[in-house]
Amino acid sequence: MTGRRDHREDAEPAPAPGQAGGGGPDAAPRSVGRRGLLSAAGAGILAGGMLGGFGGFAGGRASAEEPAPSDPLDRSYPLRGEHQQGITTPAQDYLFTAAFDVTTTDLDEVRRLMQQWLVAAEQMSTGDLVGGTPLADLQAVPRDTGEAWGYPASSVTITVGAGRSFFVDAEGRDRFGIAERMPEALADGVPRFAGEALQAERSDGDLVIQACADDAQVAMHAIRNLTRIAVGTAALRWTQMGYGRTSSTSTTQETPRNLFGYKDGTNNLKQEDGAEELGRHVWIDRADSGGERLAGGSYMMIRKIRMNLETWDRLRLIEQHEIIGRDKRFGAPLTVPDPTSGEDEFIDPDLAATEDGSPVIPRDAHIRVVSPHTNKGASMLRRGFNYTEGSDSLGRIDAGLFFIAYVRDPRESFFPILERMVSTDALEEYLRHVASAMFVVLPGVGAKDTMFGQALLS
Amino acid sequence: MTGRRDHREDAEPAPAPGQAGGGGPDAAPRSVGRRGLLSAAGAGILAGGMLGGFGGFAGGRASAEEPAPSDPLDRSYPLRGEHQQGITTPAQDYLFTAAFDVTTTDLDEVRRLMQQWLVAAEQMSTGDLVGGTPLADLQAVPRDTGEAWGYPASSVTITVGAGRSFFVDAEGRDRFGIAERMPEALADGVPRFAGEALQAERSDGDLVIQACADDAQVAMHAIRNLTRIAVGTAALRWTQMGYGRTSSTSTTQETPRNLFGYKDGTNNLKQEDGAEELGRHVWIDRADSGGERLAGGSYMMIRKIRMNLETWDRLRLIEQHEIIGRDKRFGAPLTVPDPTSGEDEFIDPDLAATEDGSPVIPRDAHIRVVSPHTNKGASMLRRGFNYTEGSDSLGRIDAGLFFIAYVRDPRESFFPILERMVSTDALEEYLRHVASAMFVVLPGVGAKDTMFGQALLS
Repeated sequence: MTGRRDHREDAEPAPAPGQAGGGGPDAAPRSVGRRGLLSAAGAGILAGGMLGGFGGFAGGRASAEEPAPSDPLDRSYPLRGEHQQGITTPAQDYLFTAAFDVTTTDLDEVRRLMQQWLVAAEQMSTGDLVGGTPLADLQAVPRDTGEAWGYPASSVTITVGAGRSFFVDAEGRDRFGIAERMPEALADGVPRFAGEALQAERSDGDLVIQACADDAQVAMHAIRNLTRIAVGTAALRWTQMGYGRTSSTSTTQETPRNLFGYKDGTNNLKQEDGAEELGRHVWIDRADSGGERLAGGSYMMIRKIRMNLETWDRLRLIEQHEIIGRDKRFGAPLTVPDPTSGEDEFIDPDLAATEDGSPVIPRDAHIRVVSPHTNKGASMLRRGFNYTEGSDSLGRIDAGLFFIAYVRDPRESFFPILERMVSTDALEEYLRHVASAMFVVLPGVGAKDTMFGQALLS
Repeated sequence: MTGRRDHREDAEPAPAPGQAGGGGPDAAPRSVGRRGLLSAAGAGILAGGMLGGFGGFAGGRASAEEPAPSDPLDRSYPLRGEHQQGITTPAQDYLFTAAFDVTTTDLDEVRRLMQQWLVAAEQMSTGDLVGGTPLADLQAVPRDTGEAWGYPASSVTITVGAGRSFFVDAEGRDRFGIAERMPEALADGVPRFAGEALQAERSDGDLVIQACADDAQVAMHAIRNLTRIAVGTAALRWTQMGYGRTSSTSTTQETPRNLFGYKDGTNNLKQEDGAEELGRHVWIDRADSGGERLAGGSYMMIRKIRMNLETWDRLRLIEQHEIIGRDKRFGAPLTVPDPTSGEDEFIDPDLAATEDGSPVIPRDAHIRVVSPHTNKGASMLRRGFNYTEGSDSLGRIDAGLFFIAYVRDPRESFFPILERMVSTDALEEYLRHVASAMFVVLPGVGAKDTMFGQALLS
């Protein structure tokens, strides 16, 4: 009755939004591919190694030469490489992130945890369970909790990082004797901004694990088992589930929509921008502060942003357009003469265009405020997700954006944009920042490494 | 760059668990189909009308004669039929449920809401937005919030019900002049049980909407827009997101695993059990209390059950087996001589088998306690989901089962089992019931109906 997988049939390619879009009510791109790896050909390019590092895309047990499976539930990614997985990996649909407080004072115990996490993460990233296939020994406590047993790898990725408080305690004291290895960006910490309502217990943390997958249960399984392994060494501080990725990290993906209904992250960095561009904006370089032990890593910048959906939903369409600076339908930047005429999401916004003396993209429009053109070329790679957490006492859905960005140096390419955003972005009236965290994501796991953060912790 | 959907390639069928299972470490059913519509042939049976009612499975815009799309993101189901959708529909991967308190005292306003909900639900169930393709009128407030625009229907279903408090207030007073139409099962209410820790604000409600989909964002979109339509007439009371369906409602689906790692709901009713069996156990009959206006409906029984994962995870495998009464690997009921030898999940548990004078399936094992054999043949159709809601102050993942069952009469086939479970089931030591609700699900929407619950509210 079970066990046979369903045969996927070739689907007819749907027309591209641009092709479909004649403006009539039936022209909507109603059934574009949700997960949107464009085609077997596109996947083939990926398999050819554009992910860089130690071989790129591993489709199940297939080698790098074979095309990647087109069903995201069948995909798996290698854990080892120049960079950690889960950053430029095509963004999956579901997220489970957990921050931990380290409870030991012994660096050797931390190293042991990083070894155990590596073994378990590598097993889970192939769709295996922790300890491999379990359940042979009836008298033993199972090493894996089992809720993903028999489930495919589902594109799962596991990404590990460390926060400021991993290096120094609240009084600035060296916790494990490696405080001098802390990079300056972490030491400086996250600046505070006006209008924040940050919950301390939902912010920060000594360590972080980001698990992404195309099946929420597989992501949950990863976090649960890594949390279990940590018992006695590190304890959960906060967790976050996310759905409906709000960013693409690859040009092979559709741009998704956020909970305000807009395509989000159109102009952010993508995997295909290539090693030079990603090296400039995403990856920590040897020459950067802390780079001798952290090169190949990145900074994971987290902002949990509640979105006031009910207020937003009462705005007229033109108001929404002008706050975002884009058309809601196709995601195209506003143009003259008709702000809805544009159908190409990817054209460069014309920030200089005016109509009757006023900028077509308003001065406080979101895309102008965060544009690289107005931020000295600063770019980030985004990997955010929507969240929904019940409803509040007023009966409003408690929902928003769990924003995640990866940057090479947040002091240059994140904090200045965040400050411009909270002070001048028209969108901020509908947002509330409720949690914040910054972690240095450890470099990729080398072929012979035996723990996450080998260079940092050895 | 966007808009072309990915070509699904035919996947090799993986071996069935029974075929694969030689007990060695490589014999695990590691890549069985997660969503598990077995094959195009299986889908063809569905398309042939086994769902009953007004034509069954509508694959996108395909007619009932065409096979249903094998990609669950491409599926859609007709809203109208003898029964509401979202009950016997093959269980989707994600859930968003919302309960509402009615804020008006005017039955005509409730009727208007039920009309508006029907129009919107019918549009959304085809993958359309509320009001059809929006965003033509820049000066108007968009009728749809837009976050699922361009997303496929993703198997979304929308199911509407009413609670006891819809008919009578806390003092038993008739709210809308239709209290005499309240069926006895609702009037009696849900009995209280020992050991419950029910949160009133997360329990009960006047109305309920269950939205299920294979994309969480599509389910969220449905609830959000229906909530918005209700403003002024009904307000959110509580919401619940769920993932990783813990039940199958069709034999074409794999049995999923719950957060204790066990296959769940193996022996519960399935769509394929047929009209007679479902009529006996699931659908309200004309002759039942309230049946003249509710025939074709059902009772939606909700229990939010927190699972003590950390405690469970410390049990030895044999202890877990004996608490559940099944093998963790294949889900087979325990047998003699070797409790792990069974590989067939679907064989009937041998409740009489003994070994050394003791029952092989222990007296307090979960499957014995809830078995139809020990409950006068009572059966239910289950449609539960896992939930995870951050972590508690002790750093434990706050997670569990959002249990949903559909039954014809909870007094016969749900409350007695629940009482046996809370008083004698070994599993209860690891569970905590934190919320409870009961709704009568309205009959299916007839071809000419203009509102949900037409027979009840006319």
